[in-house]
Amino acid sequence: MYKVDLNCDMGESFGRFVVGNDDLLLDYITSANIACGFHAGDPSTIKRTVRKALGKNVAIGAHPGLPDLQGFGRREINISPEEAYDLVVYQTGALQAFVKSEGGKLQHVKPHGALFNMAAKDAALAEAIAEAVYKVDPELILFGLAGAELVKAGKRIGLRTANEVFSDRTYQLDGTLTPRLKKNALITDHEPAAGQVIRMVKENKVKTVQGKDISIQAETVCIHGDGESALEFARAIPEALKKAGIQVEPIGKFLGR
Amino acid sequence: MYKVDLNCDMGESFGRFVVGNDDLLLDYITSANIACGFHAGDPSTIKRTVRKALGKNVAIGAHPGLPDLQGFGRREINISPEEAYDLVVYQTGALQAFVKSEGGKLQHVKPHGALFNMAAKDAALAEAIAEAVYKVDPELILFGLAGAELVKAGKRIGLRTANEVFSDRTYQLDGTLTPRLKKNALITDHEPAAGQVIRMVKENKVKTVQGKDISIQAETVCIHGDGESALEFARAIPEALKKAGIQVEPIGKFLGR
Amino acid sequence: MYKVDLNCDMGESFGRFVVGNDDLLLDYITSANIACGFHAGDPSTIKRTVRKALGKNVAIGAHPGLPDLQGFGRREINISPEEAYDLVVYQTGALQAFVKSEGGKLQHVKPHGALFNMAAKDAALAEAIAEAVYKVDPELILFGLAGAELVKAGKRIGLRTANEVFSDRTYQLDGTLTPRLKKNALITDHEPAAGQVIRMVKENKVKTVQGKDISIQAETVCIHGDGESALEFARAIPEALKKAGIQVEPIGKFLGR
Amino acid sequence: MYKVDLNCDMGESFGRFVVGNDDLLLDYITSANIACGFHAGDPSTIKRTVRKALGKNVAIGAHPGLPDLQGFGRREINISPEEAYDLVVYQTGALQAFVKSEGGKLQHVKPHGALFNMAAKDAALAEAIAEAVYKVDPELILFGLAGAELVKAGKRIGLRTANEVFSDRTYQLDGTLTPRLKKNALITDHEPAAGQVIRMVKENKVKTVQGKDISIQAETVCIHGDGESALEFARAIPEALKKAGIQVEPIGKFLGR
Repeated sequence: MYKVDLNCDMGESFGRFVVGNDDLLLDYITSANIACGFHAGDPSTIKRTVRKALGKNVAIGAHPGLPDLQGFGRREINISPEEAYDLVVYQTGALQAFVKSEGGKLQHVKPHGALFNMAAKDAALAEAIAEAVYKVDPELILFGLAGAELVKAGKRIGLRTANEVFSDRTYQLDGTLTPRLKKNALITDHEPAAGQVIRMVKENKVKTVQGKDISIQAETVCIHGDGESALEFARAIPEALKKAGIQVEPIGKFLGR
Repeated sequence: MYKVDLNCDMGESFGRFVVGNDDLLLDYITSANIACGFHAGDPSTIKRTVRKALGKNVAIGAHPGLPDLQGFGRREINISPEEAYDLVVYQTGALQAFVKSEGGKLQHVKPHGALFNMAAKDAALAEAIAEAVYKVDPELILFGLAGAELVKAGKRIGLRTANEVFSDRTYQLDGTLTPRLKKNALITDHEPAAGQVIRMVKENKVKTVQGKDISIQAETVCIHGDGESALEFARAIPEALKKAGIQVEPIGKFLGR
Repeated sequence: MYKVDLNCDMGESFGRFVVGNDDLLLDYITSANIACGFHAGDPSTIKRTVRKALGKNVAIGAHPGLPDLQGFGRREINISPEEAYDLVVYQTGALQAFVKSEGGKLQHVKPHGALFNMAAKDAALAEAIAEAVYKVDPELILFGLAGAELVKAGKRIGLRTANEVFSDRTYQLDGTLTPRLKKNALITDHEPAAGQVIRMVKENKVKTVQGKDISIQAETVCIHGDGESALEFARAIPEALKKAGIQVEPIGKFLGR
Repeated sequence: MYKVDLNCDMGESFGRFVVGNDDLLLDYITSANIACGFHAGDPSTIKRTVRKALGKNVAIGAHPGLPDLQGFGRREINISPEEAYDLVVYQTGALQAFVKSEGGKLQHVKPHGALFNMAAKDAALAEAIAEAVYKVDPELILFGLAGAELVKAGKRIGLRTANEVFSDRTYQLDGTLTPRLKKNALITDHEPAAGQVIRMVKENKVKTVQGKDISIQAETVCIHGDGESALEFARAIPEALKKAGIQVEPIGKFLGR
């Protein structure tokens, strides 16, 4: 039986700056990455979001980001590996306290935005992040770009890791995503998007923009929560996966050691 | 055998803004209240301070404050009880993650500055803070102004609580501290300061500025880390207590249920 | 000829946290109060908002707030008058630089949220704010709650001041607004709202919730930019005013010394 | 007559996080670069620092930095040129308001830390910063690393510019500073440091670590305010310059168009 997890970023409001469609999206996903207060989110938003996710039986992950509220954690900041370690421990601990205090259990950690991208390429940064997650709780699952440095670092340190793939982004020969600025970066129609995911899950392959197939592991699929077509994709992808015989459930339920 | 805990605020640097005498003070105290990033402290400072405290066998507490770095958490902010609950869960969780990841165990929570003062007087705020601490971990000890609302709220919810007294501050008939702006607010000489503490511990009494004794419980004594005479007090108080036959050790070791 | 100014808070997005209906509202108002980065707004949002306002010939004011992004400047913080002075100079200066650099001229200053409310009641705070505005530019117009401390302080120091009234809020006998928590605080229908404004402008009177008229000066009317009926009110009020023979234009064009 | 300006970073405290030796250093320098609240400084610190500088007849510059209080503006953040423009207008405007309100006149703008370094190399960023300064006030003098992109951009747009040199840093063949991490990066003795400056001012030359001379313009010399030997350097450099017949005064007094 094929299985995959669907994750989505959540809890990205800040105080009275309310953004996102969390309530609707929670009906379609299996894992929620909840912002931890550095790039978005605040203590009250975190609590509300944790409660909502638990109420919908959606598994919860910490979504730590760079300390850049104005840039939404999307601008690279030249931090040291030690600083990365420290901010992941801090944010994961804060999020975990809310999950535990509401009777749940934290499932995973997925770095956000520029931190996610930097950790895909920079081995030292990836190792520091993996170590931070391991130190907070060795049972946590670490999410990273499929095949990239963060997943490797997680495996090395002894964490369970999840290779993350994207339904709405195209791939390069080296397994990286086509940069958003390029014109063929996005898959805007949900049918080919679902098709790409189904092939990644069943065949462990994806066709690159260069036209050649590459190998890829797909354990969790990122569903974007913002943008016009977010809800449409969120509805269409899980339906298409089910039709293709792929079971959608939280990663913690099917990921082995 | 009389016993008392000596606590001090620690880890109050922020990034490259380095303040305090943590290294020296850790030799004299038994419990460290570590700033959690809202009024002071940042992830890297927290980690370093936790390591230092563990290295000196000083017990560790979370020291959550109001979100006011510029005002150092000393300016009252009109937050709701729910907001207080949320920011205590967040900060305590973040601190706890560092303590656990370094192999230690969080002993207590002591609100900082304006949050401490507001929680001494405002029963609803006190209850929210006590609930937050209980939800994060019911084994945590809650520190509050001796006899005031926060200690009462902690007891009601089922937490162990520590009545905190001050060596260098004078008391009013109702058990509150004389406001700092009044001229007789401070005890600047360490001999009468030690004498006040010894009497509070042994006789459960303190002489007020009005000249009349009142009852007071003294389970932990606050040693101030800033100010010119901080180190002098930090050295003199424990020595005087020992001479008076009072054993100084972390509150978690002697506080009953 | 009766004249009145219509003002609205603007530029309250922060980074990628986009809120508000600035583009639509600018068609109906005559003065824009632009957030300055403490309770909302950031340098890039300020620049864009200033450009939009200038493009629509809407006069611009600085809208300084308390340093509380999470609370949107609506939570009282116990700042000193000197701190109030300092944060008004800072924020007004920052906003003014954008207005000048875009070829405009700053018309007014209106404190935001809790700072506005505190300045209506606290004479020392009001005086500090008025002095800050005067020191930045004595030609600026200071907006404050009609008849309250800030307007008085502005007049004393030699500023032109604008008494601000509300179309959608009810009044108490002492000229204060009925607190939002009370059930009769809001006027939800735009017809009586417009009627209240027309009477304030033409007769200098308003009927209180107690049923008795009080005197009131109305030089500028606050149009709320958020809430469901914001746009409806923004359209209806100026139309009703014009029908009643009241000319709507920026305060700087008709306010005497 | 040879002339040169001595500048130093100032006002780098934040709230109760008090750092630096501003009072002492103001006796030796001719231009103060005052932090504007993003990497350091807050409204109250700015006001106090502006007053001190004016009281000692030290000319004042804005010292805008990246929005990174924790990293003290020393960590590169991947901002766009437009974001750089916006944050320079904002911070320069805020600082200028304090200078004007205290009866002074802003002399110059010097970007801080990582922003300074990025602007030395990145022409688009440099142009955006220069444009921001020009738009705020075309009379302002723009400080930049001697010979680097920011100075060029300032000249192109029509600003007066000041080539800044360092007494305590060694130079590379391309005119850049030897990175701090290299062992020969710093000149720790004040005699050769003064000698380097004297030669840069009089001969427009500096010996690189490679042993070869390069051309360099020296209109303002950076005196570091932190570090153990800061005060020693601050005293020794101006004395040595005077002995060598170089007059030390604020750049605004001798810099031509």
